[in-house]
Amino acid sequence: MRILGIDPGYAIVGYGIIEYENGKLRPLDYGAVETPAKLSTPERLLLIEKNITEMIKEVEPDEIAIEELFFNTNITTGIKVAQARGVVLLSCAKLCDKLFEYTPLQIKSTVTGNGNAHKTQVQYMVQSLLRLRETPKPDDAADALAAAICHAYTARDIKRGLK
Amino acid sequence: MRILGIDPGYAIVGYGIIEYENGKLRPLDYGAVETPAKLSTPERLLLIEKNITEMIKEVEPDEIAIEELFFNTNITTGIKVAQARGVVLLSCAKLCDKLFEYTPLQIKSTVTGNGNAHKTQVQYMVQSLLRLRETPKPDDAADALAAAICHAYTARDIKRGLK
Repeated sequence: MRILGIDPGYAIVGYGIIEYENGKLRPLDYGAVETPAKLSTPERLLLIEKNITEMIKEVEPDEIAIEELFFNTNITTGIKVAQARGVVLLSCAKLCDKLFEYTPLQIKSTVTGNGNAHKTQVQYMVQSLLRLRETPKPDDAADALAAAICHAYTARDIKRGLK
Repeated sequence: MRILGIDPGYAIVGYGIIEYENGKLRPLDYGAVETPAKLSTPERLLLIEKNITEMIKEVEPDEIAIEELFFNTNITTGIKVAQARGVVLLSCAKLCDKLFEYTPLQIKSTVTGNGNAHKTQVQYMVQSLLRLRETPKPDDAADALAAAICHAYTARDIKRGLK
């Protein structure tokens, strides 16, 4: 099963693709879509849609895992991030009917065993589980891979009747 | 000039179309796109995009005025509304390169002369300025018409050098 994980954002949308077969994880690709701050909001949303759509068409994922928003204290930033996440969700829904959403807590907890894990712990586990030589950069790509891993393990546990 | 006003939302997206020529306002149409609560988030976003896109193609507006979000205290609802607004912005940006955003304060202030005007005052002024026999329903459509009127008056004032 090919899983695409996405860490939605406004300035940066992280993505990571893994293959999950017979209980084994294999990294395929990861990266990020970035939108320049000098563009207007509509222009940045158009850019996110274009790049995410092209990436999904190329990757052809079986299932997509998207991180839910954890709202920080900056409401203005939060609105922009949520608007961008709406565009990401739409772009995914147009090309894949198996979308799954996970909270940051679920992802941290599934990947590290600790819902309060620090970002570096998550990155360490992602690197370790996928046997990568380096920590995936940017952080958003590592978070996206973590979402994909979370989905692989959650889907596995559901099959085994654990959840 | 044909102006499309939009009051973005998740359950309801209001829209209103007016013609503004030689300082005169004329209503063309108004209504709302509704998404059933029983659908999933991606399904509702797909529905918003589909209906807004079809409406814009039919209306062929010269310019579009979209109300900005005023964040209420319910963060969870706020995220969903902002995600939907992202989809609305994207759909508009694909078909029209003249998008304008107005805060609720700007709209109320421009339409009624009072930035703290009650919803019914805004509706009264919309009905009055467009010489409608009835108050536009749903409220979201009246708000969308108010956004369109706000844009007509603001664009006029900019031309006259008042803003």
